[in-house]
Amino acid sequence: MRAAVKTKPAFGSIEIRKVDIPQLAPDEVLVKLKISSICGTDMHIYEWDAWSQKRIKTPLIQGHEWAGEVAEVGPACTWAKKGDDVSGEGHIACGSCYQCRTGNAHVCQNVTILGIDRPGAFAEYMAVPEKNLIKNDADLPLEYASIQDPFGNAVYTVFNGDVVAKDVAVFGLGPIGLMAVALCRHIGAKRIFAVGHKNEYRIRLAKKLGADQVIKSSEDDPVEAIRDATEGQGVDAVLEMSGSEDALTQAIEVLKPAGHIQLLGIFPQPLHVDLNELITKGASMHGIHGRRMFEDWYRMQGLFRSGINLMPVVTHKFPLADIAGAMELMRSGDCGKVIVLPG
Amino acid sequence: MRAAVKTKPAFGSIEIRKVDIPQLAPDEVLVKLKISSICGTDMHIYEWDAWSQKRIKTPLIQGHEWAGEVAEVGPACTWAKKGDDVSGEGHIACGSCYQCRTGNAHVCQNVTILGIDRPGAFAEYMAVPEKNLIKNDADLPLEYASIQDPFGNAVYTVFNGDVVAKDVAVFGLGPIGLMAVALCRHIGAKRIFAVGHKNEYRIRLAKKLGADQVIKSSEDDPVEAIRDATEGQGVDAVLEMSGSEDALTQAIEVLKPAGHIQLLGIFPQPLHVDLNELITKGASMHGIHGRRMFEDWYRMQGLFRSGINLMPVVTHKFPLADIAGAMELMRSGDCGKVIVLPG
Amino acid sequence: MRAAVKTKPAFGSIEIRKVDIPQLAPDEVLVKLKISSICGTDMHIYEWDAWSQKRIKTPLIQGHEWAGEVAEVGPACTWAKKGDDVSGEGHIACGSCYQCRTGNAHVCQNVTILGIDRPGAFAEYMAVPEKNLIKNDADLPLEYASIQDPFGNAVYTVFNGDVVAKDVAVFGLGPIGLMAVALCRHIGAKRIFAVGHKNEYRIRLAKKLGADQVIKSSEDDPVEAIRDATEGQGVDAVLEMSGSEDALTQAIEVLKPAGHIQLLGIFPQPLHVDLNELITKGASMHGIHGRRMFEDWYRMQGLFRSGINLMPVVTHKFPLADIAGAMELMRSGDCGKVIVLPG
Amino acid sequence: MRAAVKTKPAFGSIEIRKVDIPQLAPDEVLVKLKISSICGTDMHIYEWDAWSQKRIKTPLIQGHEWAGEVAEVGPACTWAKKGDDVSGEGHIACGSCYQCRTGNAHVCQNVTILGIDRPGAFAEYMAVPEKNLIKNDADLPLEYASIQDPFGNAVYTVFNGDVVAKDVAVFGLGPIGLMAVALCRHIGAKRIFAVGHKNEYRIRLAKKLGADQVIKSSEDDPVEAIRDATEGQGVDAVLEMSGSEDALTQAIEVLKPAGHIQLLGIFPQPLHVDLNELITKGASMHGIHGRRMFEDWYRMQGLFRSGINLMPVVTHKFPLADIAGAMELMRSGDCGKVIVLPG
Repeated sequence: MRAAVKTKPAFGSIEIRKVDIPQLAPDEVLVKLKISSICGTDMHIYEWDAWSQKRIKTPLIQGHEWAGEVAEVGPACTWAKKGDDVSGEGHIACGSCYQCRTGNAHVCQNVTILGIDRPGAFAEYMAVPEKNLIKNDADLPLEYASIQDPFGNAVYTVFNGDVVAKDVAVFGLGPIGLMAVALCRHIGAKRIFAVGHKNEYRIRLAKKLGADQVIKSSEDDPVEAIRDATEGQGVDAVLEMSGSEDALTQAIEVLKPAGHIQLLGIFPQPLHVDLNELITKGASMHGIHGRRMFEDWYRMQGLFRSGINLMPVVTHKFPLADIAGAMELMRSGDCGKVIVLPG
Repeated sequence: MRAAVKTKPAFGSIEIRKVDIPQLAPDEVLVKLKISSICGTDMHIYEWDAWSQKRIKTPLIQGHEWAGEVAEVGPACTWAKKGDDVSGEGHIACGSCYQCRTGNAHVCQNVTILGIDRPGAFAEYMAVPEKNLIKNDADLPLEYASIQDPFGNAVYTVFNGDVVAKDVAVFGLGPIGLMAVALCRHIGAKRIFAVGHKNEYRIRLAKKLGADQVIKSSEDDPVEAIRDATEGQGVDAVLEMSGSEDALTQAIEVLKPAGHIQLLGIFPQPLHVDLNELITKGASMHGIHGRRMFEDWYRMQGLFRSGINLMPVVTHKFPLADIAGAMELMRSGDCGKVIVLPG
Repeated sequence: MRAAVKTKPAFGSIEIRKVDIPQLAPDEVLVKLKISSICGTDMHIYEWDAWSQKRIKTPLIQGHEWAGEVAEVGPACTWAKKGDDVSGEGHIACGSCYQCRTGNAHVCQNVTILGIDRPGAFAEYMAVPEKNLIKNDADLPLEYASIQDPFGNAVYTVFNGDVVAKDVAVFGLGPIGLMAVALCRHIGAKRIFAVGHKNEYRIRLAKKLGADQVIKSSEDDPVEAIRDATEGQGVDAVLEMSGSEDALTQAIEVLKPAGHIQLLGIFPQPLHVDLNELITKGASMHGIHGRRMFEDWYRMQGLFRSGINLMPVVTHKFPLADIAGAMELMRSGDCGKVIVLPG
Repeated sequence: MRAAVKTKPAFGSIEIRKVDIPQLAPDEVLVKLKISSICGTDMHIYEWDAWSQKRIKTPLIQGHEWAGEVAEVGPACTWAKKGDDVSGEGHIACGSCYQCRTGNAHVCQNVTILGIDRPGAFAEYMAVPEKNLIKNDADLPLEYASIQDPFGNAVYTVFNGDVVAKDVAVFGLGPIGLMAVALCRHIGAKRIFAVGHKNEYRIRLAKKLGADQVIKSSEDDPVEAIRDATEGQGVDAVLEMSGSEDALTQAIEVLKPAGHIQLLGIFPQPLHVDLNELITKGASMHGIHGRRMFEDWYRMQGLFRSGINLMPVVTHKFPLADIAGAMELMRSGDCGKVIVLPG
């Protein structure tokens, strides 16, 4: 089959190659991929940053956002059938650690990840454990099917707090931040304050997706802007999706007493933060990692069925052959979610 | 001032009379009423049912759904100002019982209720404790301002469970049931099954407000209909707003394992129910009484601000002088929420 | 191996027989049993009641409360090792239904149960899926290791509510009710009211295990007794473990507004109940089935480690050869938990 | 009456003076004090630290931990009676801000505090709003009655998380940390790791109060010690009561994935912290301020009734006349809770 292979431990180095179709373990299925999409993590691997240098072993087929059709079923599988339309969780949880056995498989101690620790979705075929699959509705657009992994991050972030009919600020307008804006709007947030830094492309998208007010933090002080708009009260909830120290400081300042902050963005380094304000406000911060298996996947099915509109987030499509072009576009930031088509 | 007075302990017996403007206690305000609406409880008092005979003392000015303007402020009040646009909670909680002091003032042991235990809103003026007031946004339609008490019932019912992106069935399509349908739609329920008995008027309203499927239980079996539509899975949540024994039985049957039922409808008598199915399903039932003070009131402000459309629920308006006509319309059931205008 | 076999569909009919040691599926282990205990369900099968007649196929080796040592490990197992001290969950969940995939495997739609749907623990050896095992601490008394299945019921019941530093009533003093009393005492309930019917043996045990007041409902009215002891306030929580209609009625009456009832006891038939009081109290009822997998198992390890004393609940021991005698003792009710020793 | 008065804005400066008995507002009661105790905040005022210089106006009667008897009742009070045994919440919440009206009066935006913003309890008499009172059981030891304010901090911290039958680490062994240790033991924590810095007096107290292991962080690495004792798993919960940056770093390291940290200790300055570990662990941090009004007060009544032993925490008693001596002892750290007797 054809696959995009990260060939060596260096910047870029992604090439289309002929490789063998994966072998299946007894509890796995073979998926014929119809679509995939690029995660920020894929871009980090492309750029070969410090994290990638420690974690990734080349050659590697990347990609953990995808949808396809079951092409073959391992003998120990119990329910998947050839022809099923499927996507799936990219985190393969061990199933036997304390976290897995107590409802927290998303923070499994022994996780392996598709497209990071084993061959992923930037290819014609991929092997996936049956337990990671989710069946897609027949009429689900392929774009939505593919972006469930990052949308699941947004879903976990939003539902881990309480935003319905509440004032909420979203810091960081990458694709997950943008989906969080759309989600907050879809489920009836009171007012949504979307805070970007300076990327105009994404600021326009945030407006389109339903933000009541978009604040460019390179020009305006988000704390002041939000306080002005909320009679000085601040917001009930912050979704921190920027990984910026300044944003976190502003998040704590702009939070109402008894409010909550959901933390999804990873910070480039240990940071300075005034936790005393969090304490005296009786407020809380919640780390978000991955997606709840599989509560958040079913929640997404419900959101799709209830008509959420994420299409504006999906801005570009590339053929697999031009995956390097897709990566470069991602690096520019002038895009939402970028789709890769295997055909 | 002019007021509609239930004059004697008998059916009907509601007359427009001249009465004194209420005296204020130090911690109360005088509200000049702009609008009020009729609750099912008002109709029970009109009909002088068994409950009314035990609880109500005539003469009484009824009415606990309302909005108006602060006309006078008692000396011990701390924040209300003359001219403030206000509505308010009808349950006057004592503030000192165990429930009041532990966040459950909605089930205060010593509650008194506007328009039931003391003069209410079917009048030109009414006295209300300041602690019961909520300030309305200047641009809030008066109809919405008035119906916050019953909408608050719907809000408590819906938010006490978990319906966003989930399958939900609403049994009972009185005004609160209809508002619950609109609310579930507004906040992104997956699929909403609305179950009425035979009132066509309200079945049409339920469709208009966003129900995915409306089931007339006098003709179709709700359990079968909902199972058919959900691949046999049933629903995650039931909102029981009918007070019907059959409905409760169906609710338990159609509930998914680990699902929940919110109980708002009062049953005409002790009932037969198979709780074993609830137990083996690991499911729960939650009694709903009143509205959370004042979480649900702030939640309503957020819902109004986020654009919920309840206007189709408000179907009729009557002048105070024709309040008996309004009561008779309510008795027919061919209406949604019925407004009373003092002017 | 030797096993106690229910030989035919009739009362009693339990005999010691020589049978083959079970064959293992690839993901199963063979357990050499050291101890087991008798569940109320086992007694129902012994008595061959209506439920048994529908569910059970003879011949059957019963028993789903047990502890032992891993004697053999199937090739697809990932962590169990020969010699491990283990007990395990009796409910074998499918792992792929909606409930299993959303944290509610205890109400799996496709469950099979050890000793009910497949051979159980009243034998020298038993096959168990690895995923159902829990490793026991080396110093855990065998009696405690064996009774984790029913203690897990008590743990789920108690922790599903909020009893620490609260007033709680336990209705029903069978072994699970008794363990619930001990648990409430261990974790600092304010006052524990234990309600039995007339069994003196169990009433004495309830006192020994820490109940503040034991009420014999055949002689005294529990509602009156509890109200007297709580300045008329009633209790914050009820644990309904009797399956009695009268008890449920009393439970609702004696509950504080905003309180909660946990329902474990199965009722002999559909029942009459006044739910209006539950509704106007803003209270809730929660069906309890099985145990949370595996939160409640880890919780039990914590409770054992923190020194909970359940020994008084374990009142009798029988050799496997005299299992019929053990069943007859259970039928008398003059016992707590009854142990069966395979040796 | 006699009172201990902080006479001027400087270190120490606390003197016994004759002052007028306080005047009552209509909704207040006059309390004849029987006992009080010294909070860390009182010591800060004694030392006249930076915070005190900004917040405190002299002359001031300090003291917000206390118990006494109602000596006089204002005319607008509704339930308090002369002779009632009472203690009370030191935070006087406004009752009308968003937080007060949504169940979060402990983070009221307009709070005033007894003994900080108005005359407090180091005196013979004190005026207190009736709404702040809690009635004490007649047989409650006066020492316990007095320390409910700080014990309430511990109660809020512990019950805001989930420690029953779980592994928990308590960082910081001041009086509140010590009470948290006793509380975790009383309600069945699995294992309690108490981390002090070097104060031997308090390390001995922590052992006495039930810590399974006490770690002196000036000598041993708490992360290593706790990992060693927990098979490398770490703890489910951390109670951070030290206000030390090092402790917070250790807390995050030693926390299990999906665990939680409760933050009570105020940090001397903004701090450096690696939040990425919190995020990838899917863990949370919760600011604790004050006590839940009045859930935590009722919870304390339940804990006292269930027999919690806090007596070892109460280590010293001083007459009001020697309050300066009490303050100096507090400064040394060689004490637990220090009582002041007005007589």
